[in-house]
Amino acid sequence: MANKDKLYVIKIGGNIIDNDDRLFAFIRLLSKVKGKIILVHGGGKLATRLAADLNIPQQMVDGRRITDADTLRIVTMVYAGYINKNIVAGLQSNGVNALGLSGADANLILAHKRTSASIDYGFVGDIDEVNHIFIEELLNKDLTLVIAPITHNGKGQLLNTNADTIAQTLATSLAGKFSVELIYGFEKAGVLTDVENDASVIPVLNPTLYQSYRKENKIFAGMIPKLDNAFSALDSGVQKVIIGKAEELDTLIAGSGGTSICHD
Amino acid sequence: MANKDKLYVIKIGGNIIDNDDRLFAFIRLLSKVKGKIILVHGGGKLATRLAADLNIPQQMVDGRRITDADTLRIVTMVYAGYINKNIVAGLQSNGVNALGLSGADANLILAHKRTSASIDYGFVGDIDEVNHIFIEELLNKDLTLVIAPITHNGKGQLLNTNADTIAQTLATSLAGKFSVELIYGFEKAGVLTDVENDASVIPVLNPTLYQSYRKENKIFAGMIPKLDNAFSALDSGVQKVIIGKAEELDTLIAGSGGTSICHD
Repeated sequence: MANKDKLYVIKIGGNIIDNDDRLFAFIRLLSKVKGKIILVHGGGKLATRLAADLNIPQQMVDGRRITDADTLRIVTMVYAGYINKNIVAGLQSNGVNALGLSGADANLILAHKRTSASIDYGFVGDIDEVNHIFIEELLNKDLTLVIAPITHNGKGQLLNTNADTIAQTLATSLAGKFSVELIYGFEKAGVLTDVENDASVIPVLNPTLYQSYRKENKIFAGMIPKLDNAFSALDSGVQKVIIGKAEELDTLIAGSGGTSICHD
Repeated sequence: MANKDKLYVIKIGGNIIDNDDRLFAFIRLLSKVKGKIILVHGGGKLATRLAADLNIPQQMVDGRRITDADTLRIVTMVYAGYINKNIVAGLQSNGVNALGLSGADANLILAHKRTSASIDYGFVGDIDEVNHIFIEELLNKDLTLVIAPITHNGKGQLLNTNADTIAQTLATSLAGKFSVELIYGFEKAGVLTDVENDASVIPVLNPTLYQSYRKENKIFAGMIPKLDNAFSALDSGVQKVIIGKAEELDTLIAGSGGTSICHD
């Protein structure tokens, strides 16, 4: 294990992307990280704003965007075009050789359209397969990969896909070749025992601590699916999952900020 | 020369991209081509339409789009996002391992903002340098590259760049490693002696024939800059330049359609 190169799979969301100053501060921090990097970005508010400007109504169910054909066009433009290429250009300007990709490029992420008996999510994709061999080749050329959350079904259909899930799937599918740390950028400083108080961050969570915090009802219900996914990533070979503010990426990586989720 | 792999650099414009049926028919033809391929696309009308939907006025000077900040955002979304990823997904569905890129990705195409004493073109880029080594590596992995006409200046600024110029620059910068044919998709069947009659296509143009056609005033003035560029590409090592309908790509490559421009 010690011989494997370190790979950080980092997911950032709207709170970073929607604000140019915060995004460029994050890019500067990212450019100083030693190790291989995959950055997965969402881009929520910019897509919502473009849809509003185009008078295309947006429907959200349980925090998921219903992706009709017009909305797919918007998220493809905003995620794979505007956000992806501006992050790439920003990284390049900081001396990082970044390469932006969607899941259709080089057949990177194959997915199928989600089917649900109760809700038609539209053009939303659930991941089937990752072309991890090509990703490894690119990482071994010291390219920093910037991934937009758009996948395809191999039959010509692009699909809107959850960025958290893409980050987790990439992390686990590359865990055989790299020593992977999966970092979820978050609006809070980490997993908190008091959601109103960023100072209440739990620095380390392992399965034993997690069970005891849960017994004491100290973990906010909304965090539980995220944490279950984090432990599942560890079970699939990821070394560590870190949850915290992407603006403090340096402290997350150093272990002095955020919540580190690891084995007992 | 005979030992070099064949590379087709193909530029398509709005007349193909703006029409889904024509685009997908072209993609099917492209998927049957034997040899390495770089496809460079424009995307004019879709960008114009989005600008109209967003009430962002567009200013054209001599057929060039003045690219203010809002327009740059639009072309980045439409070219690098919507068009690029839909072409990639379409090629993948035809069994072609396509990879979509802008000039910012992997520092592929470095440009500078055009300066003109008379006109402020805005965020329009003129090309300085091509990362041909990385392009060669990707082509040698049998990837078909799909290039959106967005470049960067290395300082974080994306730039709108003419797709014809990108195609020509890529073709000449790769001519040392590949036997390059540069194909310009065009709304006409080729270079015509009568612009109203597609049957009047000139099948072959070399410098001698070109001079004689020009003396006889048989070449439409609008074609002359394009043809001068074509001969300049030949001078820089490109084997052949072909102008004709992208919908008839098979005949262009077979030499039975379009105008082939070559040395004497």
